[in-house]
Amino acid sequence: MTARRGLSSLNLTFLGTASAQPSLTRNHSALALRLNSDVWLFDCGEATQHQIQRSQVKMGKIEKIFITHTHGWDHIFGLLPLLASMLNGAGGTADGVEDPRTHMVQDSLDPIEIYGPFGTRAYVRNGLKHTHTLLGAPYVVHELRLPSDPPDGDHNLHASESPTGRNIPQTNGVWSDVYRDSIISVSAAPILHSVPCIGYVVTEAPIPGKMDPAKYIPHLKRTKTPMSAMSRLQQGESMELSDGTMLHGPLKRPGRKLVILGDTYDPSPIAELASSADLLIHEATNAHLPALDSNTKAEDTFESVEARTKARGHSTPQMAGAFAARIGAKQLVLNHFSPRYPGNDDVDPTAKTIMEGIAHLAEEHYSGKITCARDFMSFNVDVTQESA
Amino acid sequence: MTARRGLSSLNLTFLGTASAQPSLTRNHSALALRLNSDVWLFDCGEATQHQIQRSQVKMGKIEKIFITHTHGWDHIFGLLPLLASMLNGAGGTADGVEDPRTHMVQDSLDPIEIYGPFGTRAYVRNGLKHTHTLLGAPYVVHELRLPSDPPDGDHNLHASESPTGRNIPQTNGVWSDVYRDSIISVSAAPILHSVPCIGYVVTEAPIPGKMDPAKYIPHLKRTKTPMSAMSRLQQGESMELSDGTMLHGPLKRPGRKLVILGDTYDPSPIAELASSADLLIHEATNAHLPALDSNTKAEDTFESVEARTKARGHSTPQMAGAFAARIGAKQLVLNHFSPRYPGNDDVDPTAKTIMEGIAHLAEEHYSGKITCARDFMSFNVDVTQESA
Repeated sequence: MTARRGLSSLNLTFLGTASAQPSLTRNHSALALRLNSDVWLFDCGEATQHQIQRSQVKMGKIEKIFITHTHGWDHIFGLLPLLASMLNGAGGTADGVEDPRTHMVQDSLDPIEIYGPFGTRAYVRNGLKHTHTLLGAPYVVHELRLPSDPPDGDHNLHASESPTGRNIPQTNGVWSDVYRDSIISVSAAPILHSVPCIGYVVTEAPIPGKMDPAKYIPHLKRTKTPMSAMSRLQQGESMELSDGTMLHGPLKRPGRKLVILGDTYDPSPIAELASSADLLIHEATNAHLPALDSNTKAEDTFESVEARTKARGHSTPQMAGAFAARIGAKQLVLNHFSPRYPGNDDVDPTAKTIMEGIAHLAEEHYSGKITCARDFMSFNVDVTQESA
Repeated sequence: MTARRGLSSLNLTFLGTASAQPSLTRNHSALALRLNSDVWLFDCGEATQHQIQRSQVKMGKIEKIFITHTHGWDHIFGLLPLLASMLNGAGGTADGVEDPRTHMVQDSLDPIEIYGPFGTRAYVRNGLKHTHTLLGAPYVVHELRLPSDPPDGDHNLHASESPTGRNIPQTNGVWSDVYRDSIISVSAAPILHSVPCIGYVVTEAPIPGKMDPAKYIPHLKRTKTPMSAMSRLQQGESMELSDGTMLHGPLKRPGRKLVILGDTYDPSPIAELASSADLLIHEATNAHLPALDSNTKAEDTFESVEARTKARGHSTPQMAGAFAARIGAKQLVLNHFSPRYPGNDDVDPTAKTIMEGIAHLAEEHYSGKITCARDFMSFNVDVTQESA
């Protein structure tokens, strides 16, 4: 990892926005979060490496992968092939010369870190084993374990697997700070789906406020205080000078907060952690669009579609809007759409009408900005406006 | 399976022709063989379902999948997601109502048949289990086992897995007739690669010759022989009529024979089985093209490239040509190219020059027709011309 001194850019690129089967306009779930030039991936459906090749996201810059749940079909079937491509995978040699990849060089490389629910580690390990895959660099899987999961165990490492994988227990129903550095942290909480599923909250550390040197330098000079005091003030600290003058650094601004949910019919357990998010990414698998969608069944109603959607562990746009309102999110992005909803709404008027119809349904419960994600949509998450 | 009365069409569609990583013009290995409307798939690299969506091949018509080897990266990482899409996969329910897919309806459906080396069954089973994947129809894995593999065992079935999976032992170093019906059969043999790898030989049953009714009907009428005798004659049989006249049905023509190899640096063990193939599909992963490929290393020679290619378990075009000549193949198709060789040679002149250069190298040892496969290339394999 490159040391981060601050986030000059925080960019989201949707690499896949379909639930279940891919369509010609939407691939399976995957989302790239770019922190300056580093890339964190959230979910990794089949053909995510293909989508990366077609995007501005650089495969070689991926340093962490967060899995919301191990539904292979649309969320992790792209993980093993991506690891093989990222980490110079190979299938062994035929000439009797041992491939150096059969032994991991542990101390020279930071492992690629994978976070996910219980079962992620076994999936990766078995998949690599059964496919004779050797990796040229190590990986590690940290599992966010539920109280109902075994607390420990599972140590038959793959040759490329670092032994530093943690089994992270919950505290008060959430996983706090599963990752933290000076600039960014990740916490997580379970969200309700048909199988154990995780929502992630990515929080930027408070950002130093803008500093007007003219407010401080004359005082420092007068009291012969070393100029290095400026960096402490920049961090928002207060200090008393030798003549009793109090200097107060500028107030820090809150950092950006992104909430990235997996599949869910009720994300309540993450509500507190997700409070006041700058951006909420929430699934909206199925919608009732009687006037817009010609495949609508005659007998369907908003209620019947919602009941069916929930029974499969998913949400409607209205449910996503209601949750965005509940946590006070400043912006809502809908994703994980049924492949019946076309993803070419940037060029096709019919598709545009349908996706606008989905956004309108979410507006019934939420008044903030709503965006329907499409594949390769990419935007920066801006710094929250300085308050006061 | 639809009962086949004869093969009116035998069509090959290349769904992926890249080794290792996909490129923008080539996907991982997968080949569809269409027998009338039924589809058999050979290998299933990542994103094969995506390629199927973009081709004329119908996913719902796939009835058998043959895996050459379990190198996931480029040969089987597409298998689990394809099964989920083909067989109406799902990830369970959230409302406490049991998904009917947790129990297999065994007697109502023929399972999708998967053939592959030892380990294929465990890969599929573990992958489905760890990803909570339920299938709406059964599958079965038949393993072609080597003498060094355990002869039996491995019976912890997945809920969607039919218990009819066979462990097929070798006889005289090959697997004869791993599948056979009245029209077509499949045999297989090991081919040498860095991991156990299989080549498949698909053979059409001899085809009844053309029959001239005028040669037979007067004799049948004269001797009051029932006209049903015509169908026996059509099958090439001979019969003696009541007046001692001998009738001989037309000679059968040999059926078509396709040889589909996986990755290999030496396919010798399949040579006898593959003899006189109408079509040989052989990999050609790496080539030395000093005048054409600007990435050629200055120190490389034909010998050094071949040595490196073989060390990784692969072949050069010359090696493929030599094997085609050795077995007397009537036609050679090269595939499984390094992603450095572009797959858009149908539209790009530079790519065309490179792929022609690869074909020329194979011509050094083989004088039959040579084709370099590209993604979505599709052609019929014609009936061998009637001899004499």
